[in-house]
Amino acid sequence: MSAEKYEESYLYRLRHSAAHLMAQALTELYPGIKLAIGPPIENGFYYDVEPPVPIREDDLPRIEKRMKELSKLDQRIERIVAPDRNAAKATILSETIEGQPPETAEYKLLLLEAVPTGEEVSFYKQERTDREGVKHKFMDLCRGPHVDSTKEIKHFKLMSIAGAYWRGDTKNKQLTRIYGTAFESQEELDEYLHNLEEAKKRDHRVLGRDLGLFMFSPRVGTGLPLWLPKGAILRDTMVEFLKKEQLVRGYEPVVTPQIASIRLYEKSGHIITFKDKLFPFMEDEDKETYILKPMNCPFHIEIYSSAMRSYRDLPIRYAEFGTVHRYEQSGEVAGILRARGFTQDDAHLFVRPDQLLSEFMGVVDLMRTVLDRLGLTKFRARLGTRDPKSSKYVGSEENWQLATQAIEQACQEMSLPYEVSEGDAAFYGPKLDLIIKDALGRDWQMGTVQVDYNLPERFELEYIGEDSKPHRPIMIHRAPFGSLERMIGLLTEHYAGAFPFWLAPVQIAVLPISDRHVEAGYELAHYLRDHFGYRVSVDDKAGTLGKKIRDNQLMKVPFMLILGDKDLEANTVGVRSRESGDLGAVSREQLFDLLKSSMG
Amino acid sequence: MSAEKYEESYLYRLRHSAAHLMAQALTELYPGIKLAIGPPIENGFYYDVEPPVPIREDDLPRIEKRMKELSKLDQRIERIVAPDRNAAKATILSETIEGQPPETAEYKLLLLEAVPTGEEVSFYKQERTDREGVKHKFMDLCRGPHVDSTKEIKHFKLMSIAGAYWRGDTKNKQLTRIYGTAFESQEELDEYLHNLEEAKKRDHRVLGRDLGLFMFSPRVGTGLPLWLPKGAILRDTMVEFLKKEQLVRGYEPVVTPQIASIRLYEKSGHIITFKDKLFPFMEDEDKETYILKPMNCPFHIEIYSSAMRSYRDLPIRYAEFGTVHRYEQSGEVAGILRARGFTQDDAHLFVRPDQLLSEFMGVVDLMRTVLDRLGLTKFRARLGTRDPKSSKYVGSEENWQLATQAIEQACQEMSLPYEVSEGDAAFYGPKLDLIIKDALGRDWQMGTVQVDYNLPERFELEYIGEDSKPHRPIMIHRAPFGSLERMIGLLTEHYAGAFPFWLAPVQIAVLPISDRHVEAGYELAHYLRDHFGYRVSVDDKAGTLGKKIRDNQLMKVPFMLILGDKDLEANTVGVRSRESGDLGAVSREQLFDLLKSSMG
Repeated sequence: MSAEKYEESYLYRLRHSAAHLMAQALTELYPGIKLAIGPPIENGFYYDVEPPVPIREDDLPRIEKRMKELSKLDQRIERIVAPDRNAAKATILSETIEGQPPETAEYKLLLLEAVPTGEEVSFYKQERTDREGVKHKFMDLCRGPHVDSTKEIKHFKLMSIAGAYWRGDTKNKQLTRIYGTAFESQEELDEYLHNLEEAKKRDHRVLGRDLGLFMFSPRVGTGLPLWLPKGAILRDTMVEFLKKEQLVRGYEPVVTPQIASIRLYEKSGHIITFKDKLFPFMEDEDKETYILKPMNCPFHIEIYSSAMRSYRDLPIRYAEFGTVHRYEQSGEVAGILRARGFTQDDAHLFVRPDQLLSEFMGVVDLMRTVLDRLGLTKFRARLGTRDPKSSKYVGSEENWQLATQAIEQACQEMSLPYEVSEGDAAFYGPKLDLIIKDALGRDWQMGTVQVDYNLPERFELEYIGEDSKPHRPIMIHRAPFGSLERMIGLLTEHYAGAFPFWLAPVQIAVLPISDRHVEAGYELAHYLRDHFGYRVSVDDKAGTLGKKIRDNQLMKVPFMLILGDKDLEANTVGVRSRESGDLGAVSREQLFDLLKSSMG
Repeated sequence: MSAEKYEESYLYRLRHSAAHLMAQALTELYPGIKLAIGPPIENGFYYDVEPPVPIREDDLPRIEKRMKELSKLDQRIERIVAPDRNAAKATILSETIEGQPPETAEYKLLLLEAVPTGEEVSFYKQERTDREGVKHKFMDLCRGPHVDSTKEIKHFKLMSIAGAYWRGDTKNKQLTRIYGTAFESQEELDEYLHNLEEAKKRDHRVLGRDLGLFMFSPRVGTGLPLWLPKGAILRDTMVEFLKKEQLVRGYEPVVTPQIASIRLYEKSGHIITFKDKLFPFMEDEDKETYILKPMNCPFHIEIYSSAMRSYRDLPIRYAEFGTVHRYEQSGEVAGILRARGFTQDDAHLFVRPDQLLSEFMGVVDLMRTVLDRLGLTKFRARLGTRDPKSSKYVGSEENWQLATQAIEQACQEMSLPYEVSEGDAAFYGPKLDLIIKDALGRDWQMGTVQVDYNLPERFELEYIGEDSKPHRPIMIHRAPFGSLERMIGLLTEHYAGAFPFWLAPVQIAVLPISDRHVEAGYELAHYLRDHFGYRVSVDDKAGTLGKKIRDNQLMKVPFMLILGDKDLEANTVGVRSRESGDLGAVSREQLFDLLKSSMG
């Protein structure tokens, strides 16, 4: 069920050829320009060049224009092979190419040095004939492959310019990197450009501030978000939802400390396997050394081992909204998407081998329920298996097979499509990652489920089997949200801050038209809160109705309820929906029905 | 409204005299014994002595017996005054007292050295006449006061023996401390002794383990509780209750980090004022130094100052169930009553001066609501005011007066009796402590409300007033539970683990009589959970009904619902109430009514 690899796709070739097309245009527009390397990348391509005069962002349209012209000429893109690097060098230095005299070949010659002796070297060439019938050739040292003709490169755009060092080494000369993108159709290009614009507008850091979700403070520190009231309510709403789902699925809550003696993490092995992400240690006057909790699992294991367990007690499912700290490098911290302190919706299942399949299915079902409720309906699963050539894995061959089969069977029985990513397992067991596609088509790796044979072994976990003998349980680690922080970051960008009704921090804003409607406004708000549990605000500030509507629109409140004289008289309320606009005056009963049906 | 001070009470004198009576018995039973000091203390009295032979616990009945005899002799207790310490010394060394020869006066002479020259010195003496008509005198250097006759000392008991250094200094000789207690009536003594026995049985550490509420682990560390499922549910139930109360009272939730740069606590001043309680610092590779959060206030202040505030925005009430860490000395850590990591039900109110009274009343009302719901109906309030002689306080004379008046007026308007404790204010403002009396008559200082002028000043907090000028808000700190840990510790001991129905981690246990009733048991359990939100367990383990009843009695489950053949037939259920015992078979409707009325 594996998808075609990008590196083998037509799009990849197209973008590679677009990089060549750009280089061709550059050699014409900037005679003497030196070309370095120009590969396709995730969302397009770039070329690193050393131009005779600086190239700036406002030069890009001119380059793009020349590319369009060159594209239309329908130049055939041909592969030319030199038998070895000496022959290739001779070709580079001897060929007469307009705009590509031998002295511009500095970087190509350096690249050639890396080619093993006796190995074939390929070039790609495209040729045009000018009005006078003279042939102009562009030729580039390149492995390829490429598309057949420049006319295939129709839907492209140059994006930006950046500095980049030759071979990524700051000791080398700084080159000019020109980024571009290309697609197979104008629609795809337009969508991509639109999504880029959208993504800027949806940046969760900007929306987080504008919507009053969270903040950072230099007096508190890097990567340590402070959740403002609306953000705290959002967290709470998600937590309450998941708690309910977990309750009916037989999870039991636990609460464990924020710190622990390093002994705990020495026992678990994290002190070594996770050392790059640990905060500095704290040594107290009794010579006890503590660390900020980087993960919850060892605590849940301590709870498991605090009592004798029987096969009848299993599965045991401990769930905790556990705050953990991981020391991300300050350059890697990114709003709440990658914070240093965050709260995982963590749980650990201790299961018998015969329960692995059903428990895994239960977890997959929960994760799908969660993503569905969050409106993240586009996702795929990736099964990380063992690299058969590596020896870094712990646990028996048999256990690995059983676990991998259990995951595959669970996915099949749950009709969950998955791709297999060999070598992507954790060292202690196979795992299933869920990769979500957001409203802008971007992939996010979120929730993960991992099967673990290692920690039960390290902590010598046991249960007494039906045979009255001790057996070792298997652990499943899982976190459907991943973390509250990361999921809220994703949701904020996915919804551009317009959270679904059930999730919105303020679900309803009551807008009294004037002072004399304020009291009725509060009555309505309290009724909606006390009888239905809705989160309701009353906008009793001075100001016109128009201003109140605009303010609440900016805050992306799902429903505004407008109260004026007529409404008080007729016991109605004017409804404005975030999605459908003005719905006019409705009765109280109609309002309650509308709200109820909006809860989804 | 101030209560009589213990130090001025008859009970205090009685206990002091009981210490003398014990000393009199000791001088008779252990000739040559040296007496050191013998004061009344909180729950009784003690005497530190240096006996010629060791005194052991099983000697106490003999001493007690002699005390009883001496008590009945109705010895008059007389005060004798020496004009100065030289005269007193002469008295001690010259008087011929049976069992109190001069060489036993070592410690009394040392005590005398501390008396300023020229100051009067008092003795208390009691005398008996033996069968032969010989007078026997017991006399002790003592400030008094005492009761009039030994016959008043009727209801006493010697409790225990411990070692104690003279003047509390380990470099000095170790003396023998004999503890006793005395009351005005036998009933009070009996109750006290009963409560002591009860308190042992109710020790929250023992119950916490037996009921599966929490645990500790040496691999995690001292004072760091791990909450087991039932304890986590108990926490959650309390949190949910308080959240609802706070929601209707206009509190807004916030969530803040577990750690912060020391800059935050330098700004707040805690780095100095709170330094003894801070965990070791963490310095990272960027030379940033973090500390584990010892209190939430500075974070809430950061949130307040993240936006411009207007007089119309106030009061702002930020609430957080905030986990904090305080480095208690390992000897001071006591289960969850004094832990190193705990969760405060914290909130900070930012108010205008004209809102102080009403907001304070709101807080007092909330605290009473909370204590009432928890069934802690006996409590008193203590107003901590400024010591007019000290200069440690910050803030203007006028503000202190306003705040103190506001608290007093709030208590009066809320009909909350309070005592005034001068000098008991925080350095930054007056405070009101609630002192709870538990089922065993013990006092617990729990929730506190503090008015704070200092932090707003330090952080230069402002709001724009109606006059368009900046003004400084006042902060109120409050925590009705104090902390979840401490309150759960108190409740566990108060209820001996038999939590009220609404709070019990497992509210209902369904007991299928045999395997064929298990399915119906789960159906009932799920119905009760899904329709009413009750926390229900199903005891589907093998075993007789009798064993199941005993097991669930031990877990102090409020209701057991027994399901057998007849119940399935008649659609009834057998109900056993923790308080009222077997209630017989009832219909489903009756059951639902019973449970609903039990929620309180």
